[in-house]
Amino acid sequence: MADYQVPLKDMSFVLYDVLKIDKLWQKLPALAEHVDRETADAILQECAKIAEQEIAPLSRQGDEIGVSFDNGQVTTAPGYKAAFATYAQGGWTALGGDIEYGGMGMPKVITGLHEEMLCSGDISFALYPGLTAGAALSLAKHGSETLKQRYLTRLYAGDWTASMCLTESHAGTDLGMIRTKAIPNHDGSYNITGNKIFITAGEHDLTENIVHLVLAKLPDAPTGPKGISLFLVPKYKVNDDESLGAANHVSCGSIEHKMGIHASATCVINFDGAEGYLIGEVNKGLACMFTMMNFERIGVGIQGIGAGVRSYQNALEYAKDSIQGRALSGAKSPEKSADSIMVHGDVRRMLLNMKALNEGSRALSTYISMQLDMATYGEGEQQQQGESLAALMTPLAKAFFTDMGFDSAVAGQQVFGGHGFIREWGQEQLVRDVRIAQIYEGTNGVQAMDLLVRKVAGSKGQLMQIFLNEVKDYIADTSSTNMDEFIEPLKQAIGELSDLTTYLLSAAEGNIEELGAAANDYLHVFGYTAMAYIWAKMAEAALSKQASGDDFYISKIHTARYYFTRILPRRLSLIVSAKSGSDCLFNIDEDLF
Amino acid sequence: MADYQVPLKDMSFVLYDVLKIDKLWQKLPALAEHVDRETADAILQECAKIAEQEIAPLSRQGDEIGVSFDNGQVTTAPGYKAAFATYAQGGWTALGGDIEYGGMGMPKVITGLHEEMLCSGDISFALYPGLTAGAALSLAKHGSETLKQRYLTRLYAGDWTASMCLTESHAGTDLGMIRTKAIPNHDGSYNITGNKIFITAGEHDLTENIVHLVLAKLPDAPTGPKGISLFLVPKYKVNDDESLGAANHVSCGSIEHKMGIHASATCVINFDGAEGYLIGEVNKGLACMFTMMNFERIGVGIQGIGAGVRSYQNALEYAKDSIQGRALSGAKSPEKSADSIMVHGDVRRMLLNMKALNEGSRALSTYISMQLDMATYGEGEQQQQGESLAALMTPLAKAFFTDMGFDSAVAGQQVFGGHGFIREWGQEQLVRDVRIAQIYEGTNGVQAMDLLVRKVAGSKGQLMQIFLNEVKDYIADTSSTNMDEFIEPLKQAIGELSDLTTYLLSAAEGNIEELGAAANDYLHVFGYTAMAYIWAKMAEAALSKQASGDDFYISKIHTARYYFTRILPRRLSLIVSAKSGSDCLFNIDEDLF
Repeated sequence: MADYQVPLKDMSFVLYDVLKIDKLWQKLPALAEHVDRETADAILQECAKIAEQEIAPLSRQGDEIGVSFDNGQVTTAPGYKAAFATYAQGGWTALGGDIEYGGMGMPKVITGLHEEMLCSGDISFALYPGLTAGAALSLAKHGSETLKQRYLTRLYAGDWTASMCLTESHAGTDLGMIRTKAIPNHDGSYNITGNKIFITAGEHDLTENIVHLVLAKLPDAPTGPKGISLFLVPKYKVNDDESLGAANHVSCGSIEHKMGIHASATCVINFDGAEGYLIGEVNKGLACMFTMMNFERIGVGIQGIGAGVRSYQNALEYAKDSIQGRALSGAKSPEKSADSIMVHGDVRRMLLNMKALNEGSRALSTYISMQLDMATYGEGEQQQQGESLAALMTPLAKAFFTDMGFDSAVAGQQVFGGHGFIREWGQEQLVRDVRIAQIYEGTNGVQAMDLLVRKVAGSKGQLMQIFLNEVKDYIADTSSTNMDEFIEPLKQAIGELSDLTTYLLSAAEGNIEELGAAANDYLHVFGYTAMAYIWAKMAEAALSKQASGDDFYISKIHTARYYFTRILPRRLSLIVSAKSGSDCLFNIDEDLF
Repeated sequence: MADYQVPLKDMSFVLYDVLKIDKLWQKLPALAEHVDRETADAILQECAKIAEQEIAPLSRQGDEIGVSFDNGQVTTAPGYKAAFATYAQGGWTALGGDIEYGGMGMPKVITGLHEEMLCSGDISFALYPGLTAGAALSLAKHGSETLKQRYLTRLYAGDWTASMCLTESHAGTDLGMIRTKAIPNHDGSYNITGNKIFITAGEHDLTENIVHLVLAKLPDAPTGPKGISLFLVPKYKVNDDESLGAANHVSCGSIEHKMGIHASATCVINFDGAEGYLIGEVNKGLACMFTMMNFERIGVGIQGIGAGVRSYQNALEYAKDSIQGRALSGAKSPEKSADSIMVHGDVRRMLLNMKALNEGSRALSTYISMQLDMATYGEGEQQQQGESLAALMTPLAKAFFTDMGFDSAVAGQQVFGGHGFIREWGQEQLVRDVRIAQIYEGTNGVQAMDLLVRKVAGSKGQLMQIFLNEVKDYIADTSSTNMDEFIEPLKQAIGELSDLTTYLLSAAEGNIEELGAAANDYLHVFGYTAMAYIWAKMAEAALSKQASGDDFYISKIHTARYYFTRILPRRLSLIVSAKSGSDCLFNIDEDLF
């Protein structure tokens, strides 16, 4: 397996040449003071060192040894404890945190790229700080001052990690059905009792305490999702002097044996009258948890990108080194016994698919992070627009980047031929590790429904219109003739996305099931089109720097061309399918399947 | 995991209602005597029992325990030895064999469906008899009378198994580069020396002897593929009285640790001056091996179908049992706490994709088997046509059915949500097991090149024209108005496949690399179109039986409709991509990747 190399130059290109993020930072008072290009670059460079030198080397051993479970205790694979300590000591657990409680206050565009590096290094490792950062965000936004002083500071310090306890065995995605109970105590705390499954980082040995965010219901709560409250339940209680107190009634019942992410502990967590503290208001827990879930959904999307990038780097090295056969048009390396497999159109197709999708996903993901930053730190119309686009594009980020990342992991494995199936090469691990990203945090089918039903139809098309208008403005403002090859197909794609949206909203008036029937296709049409927008912007930035003679920009322009030529047409079939109606899905009785 | 149930009714439908295979058998003198519907049905029913009761139950344990290696010995997982003995005692190892040497002489349409059952049960198990049957075919066609009497009879009896020793570590797909040497001995035998990797079933404990078919080069052989000869090298030599003799100089150096098919031994096999016997003529070994490879390629395609079918059965059971959420259009089971996830359009989409692709693949695969049977047992024009279509469609079968099977395995896993990632459910194993089918026996990229470069362009379009003509004749002959919904899109698809073929052959005249650039897209356009042909035939057969009131036919018509509505449009994007030219792949320098 190739040594992982963080694509720092591409990250810098996306941030400054494409998104001109440094100008945005200057305009946002809440960021201008402590964030600038110099700081951001230093952070990304330091993070790259940790990802390349400390985290990436863990992944093979983490896969082979995995986490182990013995009598309620979870032991991580060799190296994880030391790597987490290094990571925490470097201050990375505080990266996106609220400055008031010890965080570094870095915007999402930076923390997102940092997440990509961790995920390319090892998704299993990335999950421990990833869950913690999401929980911290929810706590910072909804927690009481007492909870924040006591817990948030320690999460930022990397002393403790956090988990997210939603799923119960009988309920799955349907959180309205959860049975975990919260009984109020006289001192304002609650007694939490119930069993949660699939709890990532629910138990481990990386830190001495673990802070669980737990969804539960009060005895008199309304049925369904409106009766859910959110609680903070520590593994060990915390004394008033902030030292660790008695063990809480929280235990790990078992861990799952999984297809991948073997070094990540996926736990059954049992709460047996554990002491918990309300976060936010009673019965409003789902909204508080969604602060975390939206963060994690974008984070899971980034897992897809991380795996795709690693797969590409490995496959490219393998393809260049692999000497087999000859080019169709005759030997390219006649002095050797065979050509490298880089001469084959189909090998190039697989590699360029990966390259174009990875770079497009990174840029689009960072664009979505920028919307989140505008929502968090902006004001007025800019803040509104950021919030709208972040809401619209969160399900896209989760589902589209993981679908593309899985495809890239599989494609990279294919480039390896037989060796791609052998464990020691590490390539098949990427496929197994990233596969879960399409499933957890709401399956990609759930994301597609969230996008089309809740976000697009729920806003009567307004959220999508904001995106469409932005792209139409961009098209109108871009008049350079050397951009025609990108602008023309983008114009067509955006027009068709607009038409499809109108078509489906209208069809849904007659039959709401039309939305569910079209949701997956629609999400992908949106994804390919949004990616075309960001690829056009990348092409524009690269064209403006082409004269520098730097190969990076030449490569970028070629890759943009590849995207528009070979990938963007994928939306054509999807549009036909999305418009084909729900009859073919629903006119067949369940017994006839 | 659901208990595997062999879809016997669908197999019967394909054989008799769609392909009217019993009428073909009557017309082929070499088959008419010993093959009829009654015999075939009895065989399939008996085989179903073995697959369901003996083989399917092996797969979870086979995955968890796998094969083990100790000092040159390979031990299979518990149950495999007994299951193989049962399989052999049932005469299944003789199923497709030459009657003259103890085979049952069943046609490929029957042996292919038998293979599907084994693969749905457990791909790892299926590989042991699968490789043996392929080797036997090559031996029957190219071996000397002595070799056939001594070895073929024992392979058919299930006393021994066989392997296929092609790949060497430095050569991969490029067989012209192999280094294994064959030195002639005075007695007509050869001394074989060299190292082979990725040898499926190269060593195991299921039988007392193993017959290796080995590609090697004589000292004075021409360089490249034209200098390859094929040898039979037994693990133990065989005495003149047919008892086992001394160990040959063949050893297993190690086994691979793989993503999946853990119960299949993938071996490094070392030949150190082992005694071998020439099969066929000197330097014509590749042609003899291709008899086996073409058999195995179709067999690997069937692995894709087998995994897809198992995935569908499991996912359907899970979806029906899984109670979560409500239908968009309101509760369908208001008496329960939630609806089953079968109410969701996107879950139905995944299931119907699997159903339509599985049934389409089974029918198309059996159609291809029928071409092989006509090539083997037919005469004159019919024999010619069978040979042409089998040649054209072998790479399609290998690549298209494995791509669809992998997609179905992944889709089934997705239906399971989080449980799809957990090993004990068995669903993720299907993904890991079938993944190799896209890689071995020539990667699917190699198959795409074989199809477009060797078969289509190599025949100047003639092989494809034979297929196109058959479908055009079918369209012209089908005038019933209730077939319009299938015939119209089929007509369009076949016209576009014809146009695309002409377009690419013409483009290739200017630049041969256009073929490599378009090969993967072309293969899939061909696949979806050929599957539309077989789905139209299935719809026709089902419509003619609709009046029977049997739900099977109603389901079949719905599924046909689904295929034409939601799956066939996939070819639209692929055609655009295939026609987009090779520039975007080749105008980027290797260093710019």
